[in-house]
Amino acid sequence: MDMPFPLSDQDADALIAAMGARARHAAGILAGTPTARKAEALRNAAALLRERRTAILAANAEDIARAEASGMAPAMKDRLRLDDNRLEGIAAALEAVAGLDDPVGSILDERHRPNGLRLRRVRVPLGVIGIIYESRPNVTADAGALALMAGNAAILRGGSEARASNAAIHAALADGIDAAGLPRDAVQLIPTTDRAAVGALLRAQGLVDIIIPRGGKGLVARVQDEARVPVLAHLDGINHSFVHASADPAMAEAIVVNAKLRRTGVCGSTETLLIDRSYPAPEALVTALLDAGCALNGDAAAQALDPRVTPATDADWDTEYLDAICTVGFVDGVEGAIAHIAAHASHHTDAIIAEDEAAAEHFLNAVDSAIVMWNASTQFADGGEFGLGAEIGISTGRLHARGPVALEGLTTYKWQVRGTGQTRP
Amino acid sequence: MDMPFPLSDQDADALIAAMGARARHAAGILAGTPTARKAEALRNAAALLRERRTAILAANAEDIARAEASGMAPAMKDRLRLDDNRLEGIAAALEAVAGLDDPVGSILDERHRPNGLRLRRVRVPLGVIGIIYESRPNVTADAGALALMAGNAAILRGGSEARASNAAIHAALADGIDAAGLPRDAVQLIPTTDRAAVGALLRAQGLVDIIIPRGGKGLVARVQDEARVPVLAHLDGINHSFVHASADPAMAEAIVVNAKLRRTGVCGSTETLLIDRSYPAPEALVTALLDAGCALNGDAAAQALDPRVTPATDADWDTEYLDAICTVGFVDGVEGAIAHIAAHASHHTDAIIAEDEAAAEHFLNAVDSAIVMWNASTQFADGGEFGLGAEIGISTGRLHARGPVALEGLTTYKWQVRGTGQTRP
Repeated sequence: MDMPFPLSDQDADALIAAMGARARHAAGILAGTPTARKAEALRNAAALLRERRTAILAANAEDIARAEASGMAPAMKDRLRLDDNRLEGIAAALEAVAGLDDPVGSILDERHRPNGLRLRRVRVPLGVIGIIYESRPNVTADAGALALMAGNAAILRGGSEARASNAAIHAALADGIDAAGLPRDAVQLIPTTDRAAVGALLRAQGLVDIIIPRGGKGLVARVQDEARVPVLAHLDGINHSFVHASADPAMAEAIVVNAKLRRTGVCGSTETLLIDRSYPAPEALVTALLDAGCALNGDAAAQALDPRVTPATDADWDTEYLDAICTVGFVDGVEGAIAHIAAHASHHTDAIIAEDEAAAEHFLNAVDSAIVMWNASTQFADGGEFGLGAEIGISTGRLHARGPVALEGLTTYKWQVRGTGQTRP
Repeated sequence: MDMPFPLSDQDADALIAAMGARARHAAGILAGTPTARKAEALRNAAALLRERRTAILAANAEDIARAEASGMAPAMKDRLRLDDNRLEGIAAALEAVAGLDDPVGSILDERHRPNGLRLRRVRVPLGVIGIIYESRPNVTADAGALALMAGNAAILRGGSEARASNAAIHAALADGIDAAGLPRDAVQLIPTTDRAAVGALLRAQGLVDIIIPRGGKGLVARVQDEARVPVLAHLDGINHSFVHASADPAMAEAIVVNAKLRRTGVCGSTETLLIDRSYPAPEALVTALLDAGCALNGDAAAQALDPRVTPATDADWDTEYLDAICTVGFVDGVEGAIAHIAAHASHHTDAIIAEDEAAAEHFLNAVDSAIVMWNASTQFADGGEFGLGAEIGISTGRLHARGPVALEGLTTYKWQVRGTGQTRP
């Protein structure tokens, strides 16, 4: 924390270059570290978090006091706040990551060539991962742990509002890693909250292999815009639930209400409801959402169903509300839904509700989103719900990893070729 | 070819935006096209290339005449030139791609959740691929075919020196695609050789999913430097062959001479020979390379072996010669080799020659390159030699695809979730 402030771009680049070199060295060691040792580091860290409960909560109280002095909004202050339960949750999450299957070393495929060469594609860690996040201090532990468990080194940059909490949590993680005989540099926290360091991280091509932003749209947009390092993220979750003509009305109602309203602020929530013009019970669907407290913006047909439906603007069809608001429109069959989704979706999660299997399978194949669902709530778009154990984020990009990203998404592969003296003719 | 010239950046962006929109539409159709139809398109194109032999060779003669008038270097003119044999080779390559296994639709994994949700990760095409290449007109057919066979749309930008040849070959490909009932826009050729169009392609985020440069270092460096779209490529192949103390001298000699000299201009050729200080027969190795016509730059120990070895400069250890020149140095055991390679390799292909299996396995695990080899020539670094059928290039990046990239590297995946009405608690 004794960096000059403000930091020049040059000093920021030098800082990241030095951290990157240490991270690369640590990554080289982690790549060959057995699963049990990585798990031991995380269990050590969990124990230290519990041991240092009082000190960590005191650090968090500093952050909260600063937040109060600066008049931080209550919702943001809540994200920042730690208590006994939340700290125990962080420690338990580290232990959960320690218990995940280690993807490193698994053989993706194997082939024997006629000339006797034996080829294997083997999973290896990605290398050095930069993680940029906002006010939740638990990300320091969660993201660092996932990166480490997949054999990577991590460079973390948390929000300035959480700096004391992050430093305390990071110290426990680094000490846990050290106690397992692994390099402390495996998980580094950028020791300044100067924004120049974020810029330096985003342009650190060759030093950092991938950047994962964890936070609101403003952060993700800045990262995607400025980064010269590849980014794994999603900006929007403009998700659709489409109720096909063949849908069971009771199921459709239950899924749509859940998909929209279970938690409106999560990226997997439905933002647009599409209804097949041939669906026999649209009114009940619209009424169920309205009665559950959801505001609806709709096309003319939707407005005709209930006077509470207000006219949808052009922008509504491309809006991620993250609130109890939904856009409702009618389309012509599964083809109409596919075309609407192609024009408006953010390629995150889109669902069809249908009893007609052929229509559903066509939707699952034709909709070009990271996650496509049939007869299920879009709120299931989550690495934990997918059985991945944990997720570092959801990617709407098409390269490398798509949808929920867990340990496997933090790896790559190499080709190992074993010969007996072959030369190429 | 009736674009304004020079093209403003704005016009170039508009051109690429229009081509990108058509490509995205075509990609949507190709994503659901069965393998047999894609293969039919390529076989049609092969037949058309043969039928139009005279016209294509006449177009090529135009390019050659222009090249001669401009005083093009003979090696470059040779790359540009087509004849009956080369044209037949291009047609046969299309048929070979038509016979490859189609990765699209294969199931990467499948899981059933306790709540009854059935999850599948399914391979799907990547989308829209931009391919930028230089004087070899065969790339028009090869790259377009690989992209198409994996279900993608391609936007091709060939070298201006080959424009007539490329247009003729592209017309055959588009007509073949059309005759199979698929959209001509599946493979588009940028209808101008203005460099502004390359700039527009490189910044076409959202329109183009990935850029693959095929050509010399100048092209790849420009693409990597300017691109805002992800790039799949390698810039350098600074490859090492390491002869361990336990290596069989006859095998070591045969592999090293082949790895360096079989073809010196390919990216898989060895550029640096590392010899274990405990290897008993270094002199024979050095003599074999020198006697085969290879110039050697070496460290003091290498110079002491033969007066023909000249001193290696600092830069030599980081140089891809692509010529009959090799840098030779001594290192301390497998750890010394691993450390040298970590400091100097371009993460392309690095090999160990050893009888000691433990040393070899340690090398295969510890060297962080796309391809690592044991007792084989680095010249095998090639998609065809790996049994992939064809390759669109070799990637030294760590994300998405690493090493030789064939059809599978031109795909991504999506998550399909099948439920029976599940809502998330």
